This record gives sequence, structure tokens and C-alpha cells, in this order.
Amino acid sequence: MEEYDLLIIGAGPAGLTAGIYGARSGLKTKILEAMMVGGQTALSPMIENYPGFPEIDGQGLMKAFRDHAERYVEIEEGFEVEEIRPTEGGFIVKSDDEELRSSAVILATGAEHRKLGVPGEEELSGKGVSYCATCDGFFFKGKRVVVVGGGNTAVTEAIYLLDIGVDVTLVHRRDQLRADKALGDRYLSKGGSIEWNTVVSRIEGEGKVERVVLKDTVTGEEREMAVDGVFISVGIVPKTELARRLGVETDETGYVIVDKKQATNVQGVYAAGDITGGVRQIVTGCGQGAIAALSAYEYITHEKWSQ
Amino acid sequence: MEEYDLLIIGAGPAGLTAGIYGARSGLKTKILEAMMVGGQTALSPMIENYPGFPEIDGQGLMKAFRDHAERYVEIEEGFEVEEIRPTEGGFIVKSDDEELRSSAVILATGAEHRKLGVPGEEELSGKGVSYCATCDGFFFKGKRVVVVGGGNTAVTEAIYLLDIGVDVTLVHRRDQLRADKALGDRYLSKGGSIEWNTVVSRIEGEGKVERVVLKDTVTGEEREMAVDGVFISVGIVPKTELARRLGVETDETGYVIVDKKQATNVQGVYAAGDITGGVRQIVTGCGQGAIAALSAYEYITHEKWSQ
Repeated sequence: MEEYDLLIIGAGPAGLTAGIYGARSGLKTKILEAMMVGGQTALSPMIENYPGFPEIDGQGLMKAFRDHAERYVEIEEGFEVEEIRPTEGGFIVKSDDEELRSSAVILATGAEHRKLGVPGEEELSGKGVSYCATCDGFFFKGKRVVVVGGGNTAVTEAIYLLDIGVDVTLVHRRDQLRADKALGDRYLSKGGSIEWNTVVSRIEGEGKVERVVLKDTVTGEEREMAVDGVFISVGIVPKTELARRLGVETDETGYVIVDKKQATNVQGVYAAGDITGGVRQIVTGCGQGAIAALSAYEYITHEKWSQ
Repeated sequence: MEEYDLLIIGAGPAGLTAGIYGARSGLKTKILEAMMVGGQTALSPMIENYPGFPEIDGQGLMKAFRDHAERYVEIEEGFEVEEIRPTEGGFIVKSDDEELRSSAVILATGAEHRKLGVPGEEELSGKGVSYCATCDGFFFKGKRVVVVGGGNTAVTEAIYLLDIGVDVTLVHRRDQLRADKALGDRYLSKGGSIEWNTVVSRIEGEGKVERVVLKDTVTGEEREMAVDGVFISVGIVPKTELARRLGVETDETGYVIVDKKQATNVQGVYAAGDITGGVRQIVTGCGQGAIAALSAYEYITHEKWSQ
């Protein structure tokens, strides 16, 4: 069984940065990625807020990260971790046909936006359908969008969009918001409108979003609405299955709890990026990845010394 | 008096990132810089650990950050903040000849490495003289360096350098280390050596470090030692004067205390980057800058709403 100092699960911005820092610290490090290098970021059509790259698409930025990381560290794609098992002085990380051993682990498995599951959503994703106002809102200045959802995040995103000059309609399936009243009132006072008891039943357009079909949940009536964008904010699902099976604590919203050093409650296990919640930006994930790797370095060298 | 939503003090990586995020959120934002855009980072001869830029000098990276930030936000150079004064619903930020008003402030004034103050140190800075092993250690693989200092940071840096294959001699002015015993023992067990009761009295070389002159603090004797590098680790001085005069709390080592949102104890005042301590990397400063700006956005929009 091959032995490592540090295994990093996930090759998004946080995992790739952790790889650069881990390997440069002298740790024998490997990054394991079940799917695609770059994670959610690789799907973004345009990124304007990672410092140093004023305008780049997600794939381009993640290609730059990958090339950078591969100077120092091996990335194994297609390694779907099935289990992380504690063992004497470390962990066994296994897929269905391989087992690796490591002194420390960084969980950087990310999070997924919950999907609406309506026709047009997948096809027009990145073409007007977005799951992140902070990431993509800027492209909709002066345009008209719907925000789908009724929780704090949905309303905050809707206010954010109003503030930067987007014409926003919130579409919510019930007759009142789940969001804090103050947030809802603020949204309305800023001129935002709400379609109550309404769901988006289809997203349509030729190569980009042109309209949504709205359905009244009481009467069942459908009608079209012309829009340039659809922001879907119906929840985030951090990928914490491996973490939870390992005994890593999560907070009430499901995110992994970490301290200032990105350490979890399980000794030798660190977490970075979207799996830990927060503002979920590329650059914040990178910062956390760097901290997690430097903390793992400190932990590993101290452990080895103590033996 | 010109009014802003957000003023950012300092145009290093943290401040520039905060500027991008603040302005993109729709806040009227300005960055004030007393000296040079880029801060300490601009002085680094080579940076290899900011993801996406495998090899770039500090000036080049900070030029990229500046160009990026200036798409959204004005940077005023030569604005040396003399005082930040709380006022009704915000702060007055003043230089010797100008006053600006702002609802929130982000302190990103950075930190300085304490200098040894010996001949050759300034001239050979970036040419073999370094103040950061994590930043520059990699360039000294297989070479010989002295690390000057005796505290936890100095010994940690010395161990880090040993681990990546640098030949290290620690130079300490006393006959025992201030560092934890475990750290010192670990350093020695890894084959590191220590020159006790010794100071570096001169750093010499033609265009790059070639040797140091060591002086015995007991006998006063001087001798030469051939080295490729000098890592100076005699302390860090965060630039917290403005912060402290504003009532912002600092920890026992002098760094500004922030919570997960980068908020200080003073409402409306955030801090990011080296002024807050931690691992002090470019990418971690950037991450903190982004969080600080998004927190300021949340604070400002909430405050305005409440009025």
C-alpha cells in the first residue's frame, strides 16, 4: 500500500492550493479527484473576481491552477474515495480498487447547488441560469432576472442583484418567505417584486435564457415571463458523506466545522473550501487550502517528532 | 467631505482584493495607500505559491492585482492615514491635508519584518537575504543558509528549510533558545546546527549573498562563514497604530483580533491580511480581503436599512 504524508480529497481551488502548499513544504502529497479537476469552478462561464485574472472562464482558470499544482504534486483523476478509515498513526483512503495510506487528510470535496429539476435548467446552465449572484450577478446589470427561492440566501442574492442594478423578481412557491422578515422588507423597500405561490416550471431560450414559464401553485395556471437570467437559490448541499462517516462534526446547516487552522474535530483531518460553508468564493477556498496544508505540515512533523 | 461606503487602508494583496469585492458589491469604495501598491509582496523577487501564477516576481503579480482592482475601484497612492475617527454612522479618515467619510473601514495595513540593522542587509534584501522561509525557502534547496533568531518562528523556519533540503545553521545571540524545547530538540535531531552566543554583524557579497561575518557575543571575536542565504527571523511588527488608536483589540503578539467575518471589536471596522497574523501568505490575505469586503457589504446594507 502506497504511503503518503498528506492526501487531499478534491481538486477544486481549495484542494489544488493545498496540494501546492503541502508538496512545497516537503510533504509527500497526492490529490485525489473523483470527477473533474477544477470542481464547480470549472463550470463557470466567466470569473472576474479571482485577483490577478480580470476576465477568465472557469476552465481556463482551473487549467492554470492545475498546471501550477502539477509542478509539485500528482493529481489522480477518477479516484472516487469510498471510505476514509482511521488506522494506526493515520488513515486508509480507499476507492473500489485501490488503497492508499496517509498521515493526514484534507477534505476539499466542495458543495453542490441544489437543482430545481425543471426542463431547460441543465441546458441553459451558464447561459443565463446561475446558482451564484456574487459570481455572476455583474453580467446582468441593467437586465431582468428571476431569483427562485424564499430563504435568507435567495433574498440576500436578490438584494445583491438589485443593488448592482439588476431588475429582479423573486419567485417563491409559498405565500410567505422563509427568510427573515427584515430581509424580505428590505428587498421590497428597494423596489424588488415577488411572485407568490409561484414556481418556475420551464426555462426556455435559444442558446441563452429568454423566458421562464411560471406556474401558479394554487390555480395551476401557467404564463410566460421574458427574462435574461434565472438565479436558482433553493439550497446548497455540501458533500460531507465521507466526512460524516469519519466522525467529522458538521454544523446545523450541514457544513464541516473547522477552527482557525482549518482543523476538524478529528485529529489529522482538515477541511477547506465550500465544504466548510462561509462566503464560498474561489479565493477564500484557496486561502483555506493553504492554511489547511500548512496546518497539516505542522501536525505531521510534530507527530513524527513525538514518536 | 467626500463620502464613501467603504474605505480600505492599504493596497497589498488583502486590500486590493477587498477593493475588487467591495466595488463589485455596489459599495462606493476607495483604497488608500500611504506608500507603494502591493505592499511587502511587491518586494519579493519570486513568488511560486499564488495559485495560477507558477512563477512571477512580486512586482509583476502586484501589477496584475492593481490592473484588476482598478477596473472597479480607485486607488489613491500617497494618502497616509493619520487618524480614523468614529463619527455619526461611520468614520472620518484623515491624512495631513484631506478628510474622507466612510460607513465602514477595512484595515489592511500589513506587517513588517523586524530588521537586523546590519551592513549588507538592505542592499542584499531579495538577493539572498529573506524574511520568510515559506516564501523563499524553495530557492535554497541544496544550498547553505543561516537563520538568525531563537524564537519559535525562527526555529520553525529553520526546520522547514531542513525539511526541504537546505543546509541550515541557526545563529542565536544567547546560549539557549527562546523557542519551545521540543522545537529546538526536533531541529537538532534533524541535523540542524546552532551557533550559540553569536550574532551576524555583516552580510557580504557581490550582487548576492556570499558570506556573513559572525561575531561571538562573549569573546567579541569575528569570523567569516560562506553562505548562499540569510533568513532573518527576529520578529514581525504588525502595523497596528491606527487600529489601536481606534480602540481595536490586538492579541498578546500584537496582531488585530478578528472573527470569522474578519470583523474587529469595533463595529464597522474589519481587518484582513498580515495585520491579523496567521500564516501570512498572499493567498490567505486575499481570502481574508474578500471576506472582509462581503462582511462590510452585509453590515452597511443592514445599517442603511435599519435607519
